[in-house]
Amino acid sequence: MLQPPPAEPGMREEEVDTPALLLDLDAFEHNLDAMAARLAPTGAKLRAHAKTHKSAVIARLQMARGAIGQCVQKVAEAEALAWGGIPDILVSNEVVGARKLARLAALARIARVAVCADDAAHVAACEAAAEAAGIRLPVLVEIDVGAGRCGVEPGPPAVALAERIAASRHLVFGGLQAYHGSAQHRRSPEERRSAIAAASDMARRTVEQLRQRGLDCPIVGGAGTGTFALEAASGVYTEIQAGSYAFMDADYARNEEPPPFRQSLFVLATVMSRAVPGVVVVDAGHKAVAVDSGLPLVWQRPGLRYASASDEHGKILVEDGAAPALGERLRLVPGHCDPTVDRYDWYVGVRGGRVECLWPVSARGGMA
Amino acid sequence: MLQPPPAEPGMREEEVDTPALLLDLDAFEHNLDAMAARLAPTGAKLRAHAKTHKSAVIARLQMARGAIGQCVQKVAEAEALAWGGIPDILVSNEVVGARKLARLAALARIARVAVCADDAAHVAACEAAAEAAGIRLPVLVEIDVGAGRCGVEPGPPAVALAERIAASRHLVFGGLQAYHGSAQHRRSPEERRSAIAAASDMARRTVEQLRQRGLDCPIVGGAGTGTFALEAASGVYTEIQAGSYAFMDADYARNEEPPPFRQSLFVLATVMSRAVPGVVVVDAGHKAVAVDSGLPLVWQRPGLRYASASDEHGKILVEDGAAPALGERLRLVPGHCDPTVDRYDWYVGVRGGRVECLWPVSARGGMA
Repeated sequence: MLQPPPAEPGMREEEVDTPALLLDLDAFEHNLDAMAARLAPTGAKLRAHAKTHKSAVIARLQMARGAIGQCVQKVAEAEALAWGGIPDILVSNEVVGARKLARLAALARIARVAVCADDAAHVAACEAAAEAAGIRLPVLVEIDVGAGRCGVEPGPPAVALAERIAASRHLVFGGLQAYHGSAQHRRSPEERRSAIAAASDMARRTVEQLRQRGLDCPIVGGAGTGTFALEAASGVYTEIQAGSYAFMDADYARNEEPPPFRQSLFVLATVMSRAVPGVVVVDAGHKAVAVDSGLPLVWQRPGLRYASASDEHGKILVEDGAAPALGERLRLVPGHCDPTVDRYDWYVGVRGGRVECLWPVSARGGMA
Repeated sequence: MLQPPPAEPGMREEEVDTPALLLDLDAFEHNLDAMAARLAPTGAKLRAHAKTHKSAVIARLQMARGAIGQCVQKVAEAEALAWGGIPDILVSNEVVGARKLARLAALARIARVAVCADDAAHVAACEAAAEAAGIRLPVLVEIDVGAGRCGVEPGPPAVALAERIAASRHLVFGGLQAYHGSAQHRRSPEERRSAIAAASDMARRTVEQLRQRGLDCPIVGGAGTGTFALEAASGVYTEIQAGSYAFMDADYARNEEPPPFRQSLFVLATVMSRAVPGVVVVDAGHKAVAVDSGLPLVWQRPGLRYASASDEHGKILVEDGAAPALGERLRLVPGHCDPTVDRYDWYVGVRGGRVECLWPVSARGGMA
């Protein structure tokens, strides 16, 4: 079931078997440095989100350039990172199910792990798992700052849940999870600014009410690549949970003022048919690239437009210039990087036209 | 990197770790029998498409109930099936790249393998691979019968390519690949009927022209779950390449006259948050279920509507009745079964509320 890597170090890019997940290492390293430079003056720390990269190797590189830990969404991702040597992991999500919570608590022997709750039932289940494992588990209260997905209301309901956590001998109140997911892709800077201003106010008000009850917030976490500068400047968020900044994608690139990150992630595809006039077909469709946030773009080939995907095919219209040759490789910019990465077992790291490294997508799938 | 199975045989369905790929074995077996019964009077044979199930186990079950072989789209899928004991495999697609063709030719030692071409360059590359491997490789000519994706024009261009194949000492002319992909999901029976009538005419005319040049067509292959009865009744198609019939999905279920297949494939999800009024959040988003053909449906819960997906979350609106409890399991009907299956390492086979078997998705990924 394990797919062999599609390349070997030293190969030329055009020799890589396709479809393959390509990481342009120069652009990737630029992005890590650019995020560190942007956050340094703000005092906010980076807890990069591993739901994007699903790789302990990339997590370590982020931490070598300033990240203080990692976020994950699932226990299986936390396991892959802890086993890969990452010392500080926040599950920025609720975990439901006694088996999953037992696995999470078991990781506390090799890493600092924390998890979120938005219901007293979550807290009770975390408490039981922590007691059974003989650990004290940090639990953050997730508040709904505008996305309407998970999270209790800010203010008194959040305070009540925090007090429930703090009262447990087996838990530690870890702070607030205040992520505004739906603000990340709003198109205008004004929309993003007003959404995050409102989110920051809700978080600030809740932090103050907690302080009045004698509860400190070691973490106020949130933010993504679309809005991180706003949370970092808010004075209330202490940890920035951006993930896509390391890779970028076609959807983030459509934002009006793109943050200073370069496209580093590509799906490498091969032209496999050019029998129909005006069309070339590549070997990258739904199973190779996520289309939930729009179709991929063809990188640096303005005359070519990826027009539709089927399971294993991408149909590219030749709108200007010559059609690429049969067998020619094209780089595609995914519409959405996170679920695209999750389709692959291997990153193929390239620099200067050559394969430099192969890294496993060690937390791929993560179905449990 | 290998995910552990999310269940064990004997477990109750509500104990399965989620998100999980659930196969309702009664419905699945019904579907295999129903397809065999539908094709029996027509004379057309089933070469089931493994791009849907990606499993050597399911392939063997299909062959035990009448399928004469399997289709695949990629060399990695052909490998997984051949290694799993499947004796007759057609790559219903062009394969580009010397490494891939060498792998395909190597499989000819343990299975009958065939591949498609729509360009003289494909034929030359197949010839080189077959010669190097010391085998004779059957090659089908793909014709474009209306989808405008891959395939040469029917008639003289197809005949010329077939003659090029037949002239090679290292190749065998295998017949015609005449799949009309875009007809599968056309909404009205009339649209599907007229599309397949046109496709059948093109295939029939090409078969006749080939016969005039002394070339027999051992295979005229095509059809999918949306149209198979039409191709089977055409008198020209000899092999039916349906795949989704075994599982079904929400998109096929929207067709006006659904074929006699039951929904057997589900994504099992857990309610992980109900903090926001009128909403429950499940742990199955873009990474757990494909949305390219529409959002999933909540199975047998008419008051619940899956309204939006993010990477790891599905937001379900409670439109009628009581909200499900935290921790409750919900079965989701995927919008599109093929790319949903490709996100998982394991099938969890259930019958009567109990886990009966675990089968690996042995051809998952198949990036090369």
